[in-house]
Amino acid sequence: MDKALQDTLTLISGGLAEFETAFAREISGHSGLIGAMASHVLASPGKRIRPAMYLLSSYVYDPDRKIRIDAAVAIELIHTATLLHDDVNDGADQRRGRPSANRIWGNLAAVLMGDHLFAKAFRVMVDSGDQRVLRTISAASERVAIGELLQLQETGNIAVTEADYMRIIGDKTASLFSAACEAGALSHGNSQWGERFRSFGEYVGIGFQIADDLLDYYGDTAQTGKPKGNDLKAGKVTLPLIHALRGAPESDRRHVEEVLAGESDNGIGDVVDFVRERGGFDYARAKADNFRNLALEQIADLGQSVYKQALVDVVNHSVARQS
Amino acid sequence: MDKALQDTLTLISGGLAEFETAFAREISGHSGLIGAMASHVLASPGKRIRPAMYLLSSYVYDPDRKIRIDAAVAIELIHTATLLHDDVNDGADQRRGRPSANRIWGNLAAVLMGDHLFAKAFRVMVDSGDQRVLRTISAASERVAIGELLQLQETGNIAVTEADYMRIIGDKTASLFSAACEAGALSHGNSQWGERFRSFGEYVGIGFQIADDLLDYYGDTAQTGKPKGNDLKAGKVTLPLIHALRGAPESDRRHVEEVLAGESDNGIGDVVDFVRERGGFDYARAKADNFRNLALEQIADLGQSVYKQALVDVVNHSVARQS
Repeated sequence: MDKALQDTLTLISGGLAEFETAFAREISGHSGLIGAMASHVLASPGKRIRPAMYLLSSYVYDPDRKIRIDAAVAIELIHTATLLHDDVNDGADQRRGRPSANRIWGNLAAVLMGDHLFAKAFRVMVDSGDQRVLRTISAASERVAIGELLQLQETGNIAVTEADYMRIIGDKTASLFSAACEAGALSHGNSQWGERFRSFGEYVGIGFQIADDLLDYYGDTAQTGKPKGNDLKAGKVTLPLIHALRGAPESDRRHVEEVLAGESDNGIGDVVDFVRERGGFDYARAKADNFRNLALEQIADLGQSVYKQALVDVVNHSVARQS
Repeated sequence: MDKALQDTLTLISGGLAEFETAFAREISGHSGLIGAMASHVLASPGKRIRPAMYLLSSYVYDPDRKIRIDAAVAIELIHTATLLHDDVNDGADQRRGRPSANRIWGNLAAVLMGDHLFAKAFRVMVDSGDQRVLRTISAASERVAIGELLQLQETGNIAVTEADYMRIIGDKTASLFSAACEAGALSHGNSQWGERFRSFGEYVGIGFQIADDLLDYYGDTAQTGKPKGNDLKAGKVTLPLIHALRGAPESDRRHVEEVLAGESDNGIGDVVDFVRERGGFDYARAKADNFRNLALEQIADLGQSVYKQALVDVVNHSVARQS
């Protein structure tokens, strides 16, 4: 984790601790299979980037006002549910460097545990009673499922366009970033801020996902906890490859198609080389930076404060990250 | 379908048609994979028993008042999502006599389509803006997931008790029946009626599930669209078997355990005979009737009307059904 992000998380450690307590309280309290899976979920908490963005989108307006944490809990519950289903869908053995829930308890249990957390998220939102935040989060969760389905539809399809890709990552990833930032800003009841932070979160989320997709090509497995080339093995066509395929010779396109279909044993390395040589990495990196800049523009005219600087640091980390 | 139920559905055909239109509108509008799966879902609509109970629980109070249909749409969306995930979990090839979604599009697509419908259900509820119905439905959806997880936990466990079984079917099945009836009653803003109809729906749902579990032992496949012995093959221990196992000789218990674990090829017939001979069918039938009577008691003092009689018919059909 880079130094700037570490400082940021220290700045909001009180809010994050409150989040952890509330999140653990929602998930806990069951015995047996549910209890065991809940403990597993809590034992590898991830970076809590969505709760951090929620808190900062609120603090930057007024750091002294007491805010409710339940929207952040609901969003992280939906995110966690999505990861459980993703791992089933990808047949992933690992999550954050530990065995995945589907590996330990099987696909059935992981699907149902995802449903359970998803249902909990809605109950938390309903209990909060804030109609506007409810709308924001329920619309985002609908986008998540649509994005995942579109992604599945385009598996192995080398004709997928950059516009398709942008739609998919906007729906599956940026939706929850956007909801976290909007809900944070709305916690002060200022609807203009809500709109501004919705766009802010959307841009950060798109930049984040482009960076994440790049990591699949050249990330450090020891840091990311993810083996390289996972997306290619799963037939996912992401931005670096979409760019590389533009105007590529028919023979290369056919080879890529075979690799995505799992019909070529040692083909992953070939595709990585193909993408690098055709400028796919540089193109995706430039696009990620572009979305970072769009995000930063949204908050450019906010007065300087440690919270404003922290938001900038989170954006930079999310989009430029190597892990 | 029996005559009384047919008459009932004719009585509420206006409301059911309104429901179908609203339900189809929510699911439609997508192309590609999502559109194809949505068409598949709409093409085999099921009996719409939950929407029927919603409508009747409202009409019995005041048949002339215009009611909103969205709570019924949300509940049926959750039910449909659950079926999609159930079929993945059971490895089911068929649903309502047609190929299951997981068989046509694969497990991944069926899981994600379930998530999509689940998210839609919440958006529909949030849009409706009725805080109390929102609470009712979100609490029910949390129970559904818990019931499914408990059921999975007890797969193949011959030590499961009747109390465990009641908890499981209450959560996984009766929860949505209960929510449908409560939401229907609440549509008139009478909270005493809400409580009464919540209990009513809970009892109907439990009776319905006991009857459904009995069908797995002696239902007519041509009518139910379900091959017999599915639950046993999936290791599910339901009420007829729980009763038969009480005080059974150790050798019988061991044989049942082997059959549930899939370690005995022709064992399903043995278990069916074992359950019949030990009175498991009669016991479960009596329990189902017991819950029917509890349900009917809840509505006993309502004034006579065609809607009251229709509710009685739906209860009788649900609990006594052979298909």
